[in-house]
Parts: sequence; structure tokens; C-alpha cells
Amino acid sequence: MRLNINADLGESWGAFRMGEDEALLGIVQSANLACGMHGGDPLVMARTVAAARARGVSIGAHPGYADLHGFGRRAMDLGEEELAALITYQLGALAAIARAGGATMTHVKPHGAMSNRACADPEMAGLIARTVAAFDPGLILLAPALSDLARAGAVVGLRVAAEVFADRTYEEDGQLTPRRMPGAVLHEAGMMRDHVLTMVDAGGIVTRGGVVLDVPFQSICVHGDGPAAVAGARAVAGALAAAGHDLVPLPLLV
Amino acid sequence: MRLNINADLGESWGAFRMGEDEALLGIVQSANLACGMHGGDPLVMARTVAAARARGVSIGAHPGYADLHGFGRRAMDLGEEELAALITYQLGALAAIARAGGATMTHVKPHGAMSNRACADPEMAGLIARTVAAFDPGLILLAPALSDLARAGAVVGLRVAAEVFADRTYEEDGQLTPRRMPGAVLHEAGMMRDHVLTMVDAGGIVTRGGVVLDVPFQSICVHGDGPAAVAGARAVAGALAAAGHDLVPLPLLV
Amino acid sequence: MRLNINADLGESWGAFRMGEDEALLGIVQSANLACGMHGGDPLVMARTVAAARARGVSIGAHPGYADLHGFGRRAMDLGEEELAALITYQLGALAAIARAGGATMTHVKPHGAMSNRACADPEMAGLIARTVAAFDPGLILLAPALSDLARAGAVVGLRVAAEVFADRTYEEDGQLTPRRMPGAVLHEAGMMRDHVLTMVDAGGIVTRGGVVLDVPFQSICVHGDGPAAVAGARAVAGALAAAGHDLVPLPLLV
Amino acid sequence: MRLNINADLGESWGAFRMGEDEALLGIVQSANLACGMHGGDPLVMARTVAAARARGVSIGAHPGYADLHGFGRRAMDLGEEELAALITYQLGALAAIARAGGATMTHVKPHGAMSNRACADPEMAGLIARTVAAFDPGLILLAPALSDLARAGAVVGLRVAAEVFADRTYEEDGQLTPRRMPGAVLHEAGMMRDHVLTMVDAGGIVTRGGVVLDVPFQSICVHGDGPAAVAGARAVAGALAAAGHDLVPLPLLV
Repeated sequence: MRLNINADLGESWGAFRMGEDEALLGIVQSANLACGMHGGDPLVMARTVAAARARGVSIGAHPGYADLHGFGRRAMDLGEEELAALITYQLGALAAIARAGGATMTHVKPHGAMSNRACADPEMAGLIARTVAAFDPGLILLAPALSDLARAGAVVGLRVAAEVFADRTYEEDGQLTPRRMPGAVLHEAGMMRDHVLTMVDAGGIVTRGGVVLDVPFQSICVHGDGPAAVAGARAVAGALAAAGHDLVPLPLLV
Repeated sequence: MRLNINADLGESWGAFRMGEDEALLGIVQSANLACGMHGGDPLVMARTVAAARARGVSIGAHPGYADLHGFGRRAMDLGEEELAALITYQLGALAAIARAGGATMTHVKPHGAMSNRACADPEMAGLIARTVAAFDPGLILLAPALSDLARAGAVVGLRVAAEVFADRTYEEDGQLTPRRMPGAVLHEAGMMRDHVLTMVDAGGIVTRGGVVLDVPFQSICVHGDGPAAVAGARAVAGALAAAGHDLVPLPLLV
Repeated sequence: MRLNINADLGESWGAFRMGEDEALLGIVQSANLACGMHGGDPLVMARTVAAARARGVSIGAHPGYADLHGFGRRAMDLGEEELAALITYQLGALAAIARAGGATMTHVKPHGAMSNRACADPEMAGLIARTVAAFDPGLILLAPALSDLARAGAVVGLRVAAEVFADRTYEEDGQLTPRRMPGAVLHEAGMMRDHVLTMVDAGGIVTRGGVVLDVPFQSICVHGDGPAAVAGARAVAGALAAAGHDLVPLPLLV
Repeated sequence: MRLNINADLGESWGAFRMGEDEALLGIVQSANLACGMHGGDPLVMARTVAAARARGVSIGAHPGYADLHGFGRRAMDLGEEELAALITYQLGALAAIARAGGATMTHVKPHGAMSNRACADPEMAGLIARTVAAFDPGLILLAPALSDLARAGAVVGLRVAAEVFADRTYEEDGQLTPRRMPGAVLHEAGMMRDHVLTMVDAGGIVTRGGVVLDVPFQSICVHGDGPAAVAGARAVAGALAAAGHDLVPLPLLV
């Protein structure tokens, strides 16, 4: 089975380092690059493009709210005109940096609070999908399985890659277990690996309670905050490869 | 004779207003839009693109150093990789915003301290010209007449529009009279108008001392900081039109 | 009767000018100075302190959320520790700048979204009041009449100056008419003047419907965004002086 | 002999982590805290104050240029009024945060490009020293031995603590070996330890060539960028303690 692992990269800014880019670039097949608004600056973007390209990792934009101090994790209430401009700006910036580096930007995945809201707000999801399609209808929209954002991408005719999270559990409505609940976040590499393998084998999301939901997915999102996360990502990738799955960049998958 | 008037627009940022965009859009044929680094934000950029397009004003990028507080006027010593990424980022962002607004970005003019240095540093000028050409070889480079930047643009095969300043006088080496010298900056609308008319009639830069330099130019740069500047810009445009010159956007000129 | 007029000043930042400070400094007796987080920078603060001192205008801090692009007007959900640190930081910074300029910071008035929430959230109001009192129990808290913030200031033993707005109307619960309702904001100088005179004569808030609420106030807040606002501020000050009221800085009043 | 070890701490900003604060707090006796301009934000400052206080580490301000992206390492040409306001702002902010945390700010050490220039520019050094003394004449100025800044502090009557660097070598004029020269920076913990012990034993700076300069110092500056630096800092502290030196906070030393 063909699968993809993705991670958020290039979130450093100036002298401020963030994330485990080097380690993750050896694990994932697709990278979501910050575009300067919540993290990332032009030099970081250029260097991350070069590093991803050298590893054969496909490149996507990870647009976020213009909120460096809050790292794009603060809810923000923007008008449609501003939100569309904010996303277009970031897509244009990264596409240009990628092209200058001999690479191509092939997907988009919103970041943080922007993503959280777009996943559960059909109107905002539609606006984002239309904005992405207007910029380049050939882009892949990478979005959580079952989210309003994934649905909106399909509606406007974008290729959509549905993702599940290696370190988060699911409820029976297909949504993530809220973080305030015990067990919502998996902290051990082995648990992440098993969680992902279970879902891949089942061909859909498997809930905390063991219920299999008929929700196909193409990509697995891993994180790099902390050595446990990197170990988990490595365990997931290793187990999938060992099980004979073919880990490929998003453009080869959807 | 075909001529062009250009001005820097879209430099507001968030709630902070800057410049006399509305007035200048009725005077100029080409606008240099800030791209978020020294001024301008995605919403300001989108709205300025829309306003320029509605007036038939051609749109260019006005990339600057990443220095909002210093408004891009502080000298900064960046490595080549960072400078190229910084410019590519801004070109990509504005080109995308322009396209989303049904317009086309057709020229580039560096801002502030970045421009000052590029005008007198052949190496930096060359890097900028190559970066612009790599992004889009069809772009026009708008640069001060006789500057290293104008020369570098020609070397890499870009179309170059040479500009003179309506409110600045010139020395016999073709460079601007340093600001610290008396008379370096013209503060009256009538003086700006006469200065420009004299140079247009002479077909080249005319120095403070009345010497005519054989330096052709295609565009006149006007400023919007203060009512005198706007009045001067209006006087220049009015006098050129009255003298039968054809004021056109840059793409129709070079 | 002794009264005070206050306005928000010193909100410019770098090259970005904001507000009509020069005009307002000739009208108000107390100035609320931005402290670098939503506007204002150290140089702007120092110059505004000097200008206020030269006019005999008393100086207060106008702390806001750390949100330059949103000008402190975006709602933000901060923890208690962060909010307290953010306010203490701004109080300390302005108090130091004032002292270096031979002046004294004598009051505090929160800005924008921070103020809006503190006026209707007793817990946050209490935290702010305690934070101000811990910094300097001699400070005056300037807060909207009838607000949770004004109440919290009294509870912790701060001197409180209650303010009404020259350009906003009131409902019978003593709160501002919501901006979405017609007539919520007064746009003419004469209307602002009459609104203030009516309330001063009545000795309390007078609602849109003409009901007099027994809510004493000591200060009138005026704004500087636009010539109408400045004209209104001038009309209010002129009418109060003509009516024999004594317009004094806050420390002489509460 | 009484000695002090100092390090720059609290340079994280928002979600962006920087430095090895936790490790260094167990090694140093005095901490220089970023004040929000090149790093540090109010919450980071408050937490670093609390952590330093809990360890008995004395607290100083580490004011820098307003340049987050460049981390205060870019040269900047500010007027005297702006530089004084910038420093006063940061001193006031940290002093307030320290006081709110039950601690006292007892020293000042400029950061990065601001420090570099102040160390070799008597006029700027004088301005900084006067600004610090005007804020609080009881503050200790922590400055490189033999620097213009150290001299200026003495001239205005501040207590001055002279520092040497554990990981940098010295030339015979008492200045640091330029970074471009081989051996300018020590990268091994053992070399840092020996370098410091040699100078402490000699009672003055010892140059690369082994010449002893009669330049007394009171403090040793260590860095936290990377595990080698932390190991070096630990080795220095351990060796000094083992040699019977008394490592104390700056206020107990000068």
C-alpha cells in the first residue's frame, strides 16, 4: 500500500531555532513549510526547500495567522478578504522560494489555529479551498480526514490528501479526542507506531474504543517537538516500511 | 513623448496608515507596492492592487529589508543567500496577490536602504538583477538613472526603466545631491514641476548647476509624504500632460 | 466643578504615524501613552512624555496586548501569569521613560481588547487592579464608569477615576450602545459637546433615551482619529471651560 | 578569592525556545536577562526572574537593540535620544518584573551589537553609562575588562564589574582575538576551564601568547549555546570552586 508521512518543518525564525528538521527530513516524504507568518523566514524557507529537495521530500506550504509571538496558535477573527490575502501571500512567497531552489511546491496544509477553525467551519474551509485553487488548481490540499477542510477541498476540485495523526487518538465521530481528556495524546514511540499500524491495517480511523471507522486516509502526520516525537516518527516509518508499505511523496499518491 | 510617473504605495500596515495612496493613484501610471517586510501587509497589498487596477495603474513590487520599525531605511548587511531569498519571497507574495486580484505584477523597484546600497554596489546590484530575472525574466526593473542597479538590470537582460526624482537635485556625476547639502530636496510644487520639465525638455538629467547630462530616463518618481509632495506630483503630471507628453504605465514604455 | 479630559496618545511606532497628538495635547489634561506593545516605541514614548510635560498634561500608561499588527484590538486569551507580566512590563517601561524625562506616571488605563474584556470580566479586572496596585499603590486607575474594572480598582484600594466617552451613547444599564446600533457613535463635534454638557449638568450618565443614571464620573475620554474627533474634543473642552468648569490633570481630581 | 560567573538568560520568545537556561542557572551566580527587544518577552522574563531567584542567582538587565529577527546582533545606528530611551525602557520593564517577582534587578549588561559598539565607542559608552546611572545609580555595570564601556561606568560613578570570557582568547592590547582568526574561540570544556584558571591565578588577562596583562576582573562570562558551552561553564565553575574560590552574585562582589 502506498502511504505518506508528513511533518511541519522550517518553523525556525532568525536566530530562534525550532523543531527537529534534520531528523524529520530523514523520516517523512512530504514537508509542510512555514511561510513567514507564524514561523519561517525567507532564509529558513530557502534552506528548508534545499534540504527537502536533497532528500526527495515533497514541499508544501503551511500558511498560518500573522502571529509570530503566538506561533499561529491563537484564534483570530479575520474577515474573508484578509484571510484570503494572507493565504495567497504565503502561497506565493513559498512557491517562489521553492522555484528559485529548483523545487516545486505541490501541496498546502494550514497551520495551527487557522487549521483548527477551518476543520470545523465549512464557510472558512470553503474560502481557504477556493483561495488555494485560485492560486494553483494543481495543488494538493492536505487536511485531516473527515474535516470540513478536506470536504471543501474536494468540492472545489482540488486533489485532497486525508491525514491522521500518529500521536492523537480518535473518538467515534471521527474527531480527535479533546486534549483535556486522558490518553488524548500518545507520548511513547511504541504507542504511536501501534496506533498507526492498527489504522493502516484497518484501512480507516480506529477509535480509542477500537471501533473502525470507514474513513480512508493517505498520509500520517508526525511531529518533531521533542525526542519522543522524533522517535515515534521513526518508529512509525520503520514499521510501515517493514510491513511492506511504499512511503511516497504526496504527488505520487493522490 | 511617452513618459511615466511612479510612486511608492501600499506602505500602510495593520492599523497604521502611511502615505497618500488615494491621491497618488490619480496622478501616477505605475505604483511600487510594499510587500510586507518594511510596510504593507497582505490585506493592504490586496486593496492597493485593486485600487491600482481600477485606475489603470501598473503594479510593481517594492521589496525592502525585513525591518518594519525602521521602515526599511536602516542599512543591513545580509549574506547573498538571505538577500536573494528575501527578494524572491516578496516578489512571489505580491505576484500572487496581484494575480488573485486580476492584475499582473509588471515591474520591480527595491526600497530604501536596500535600493540605496544596490545603486552603488555592483555586486549587490548584480545579485538583485539576477534574482529578479530568475523569478520572471519579463519583469521591468525600475531603477535610478545611471545607478549600478540600472546597469545590472541591463546586463542580465531585464527591461530597465530609468527614473529621475521630481524632488531631488543632481550633481555633475549624475548622482543625487547629498541630503545634507542645501537645496538637495525640493520642497515646493512649482520647483518640482520646473525641475522635471527642464529635464524632460533636455532629454536627460540637468544638474543643479544647469549642466545637461546625456542620461535618458523613462520615469519620474514622485513622493506622497505630505501635502506639498502630492501637490508637486500633481503639478508635474499636469505640466507634462499640458506639454503634450503621453503618460503611460511602464509596460507600455520599455 | 473640577473635571478632566483624557485621550490616548503616543501610539505612533517607528516611521508609522498615528493620531493627532499635537492637537490633543492642547485640549486634554491627561494622556494615556501606549507602551510599545500595541503602539508606541521607546522614542515615541520619550517624546510624548516631553510634549505632555511641557503642556502640563498628566501622564498615564495605556498598556495593551502584544499585538502591533492588530493594534491591540484583537481579543486574546492569556493566562493570568502572562497578563500580569505583560502589564507590569509596560508600567515599568513607561514609568522609567517618564522619570528619565523629569515627569511622573500617575495613572493607568488599559487599551483596546484588553480594556474591553476587563470592563466586563470581574476576574480579569481584579487581576489587572492587583497588578497595578502591586506596581505602585499610588497610581490612579482610569476606567469606564460602572465597569468591572472601575469596581476592581476600588476594591484593591486604588484611586479610581471614572470616565465617560464624548463620542459614544449609553443604554439604560449604563453600558455603551453597541457599535452595530444606529447612533452608537457620535460623529459631529456639536453632538459630542452637547452629549458631554448634558451629562456634566446632570451629574451622571445620560442615556440615549434621556434617562439620567446616578453614575458620577470625573473624566471625559476624547479621541483623535480624524479631524471631526479633534474638533469634537476641542468643542467639549471649550464648552466645559465656558461653563466655568475647572479642567485639571487626574492627580488633582481623585 | 571572590569571583562571579555570569550568563545571558531568558532569551526565549513566545514559542521560540533559546538557550540552556535551566542548566546555566545551576552554574552561574548572576544572570543577564533579555528585556523583550532582541529576545525575552514579559512571561519569559517573569519566569526567568522566578527561576533565578529560587537559585539565589542575581538578576541584571541585558538590554539590546529592537531587533528580534537579528537577535540584536545587527549593527544599528541610533540617535542618542533613541538609544537612551531604548535602554531606559528595558531597564524599567525588567526592574518592574523583577520587583513583582520579589526580586531586585542589581546589574546591567548591554547585549550583542549594542555592547560591541559601546565597548569601542567612548561617546556611546558614556551615553549608556549616564542612562543607567540616571535610572538607578545603585546598579552595577557589567562590562568587558578594558572596554570603553567599563571605563565610562567608572566615570559616572557606577559600580563596575569587569568580565572576561571563558571561551574567547585575548590579544596583547587586551582585546578579544578577532573571530576570524584561528583559535579565537575555545570549543572544548577543558580548554575553557584552563583558560579561566590561568587568568584567575595570574590575577589578570592572559593573552594567547601567554603574556599577563595587569587587568583585574571580577566576573567570568559563560555561554549556553550548545552542550559544549554548558559543559565548559560547568567545568569552569567546578574548577574555581575546587580551587577554593568563592563564587558569589555580583552585589556581593563589587
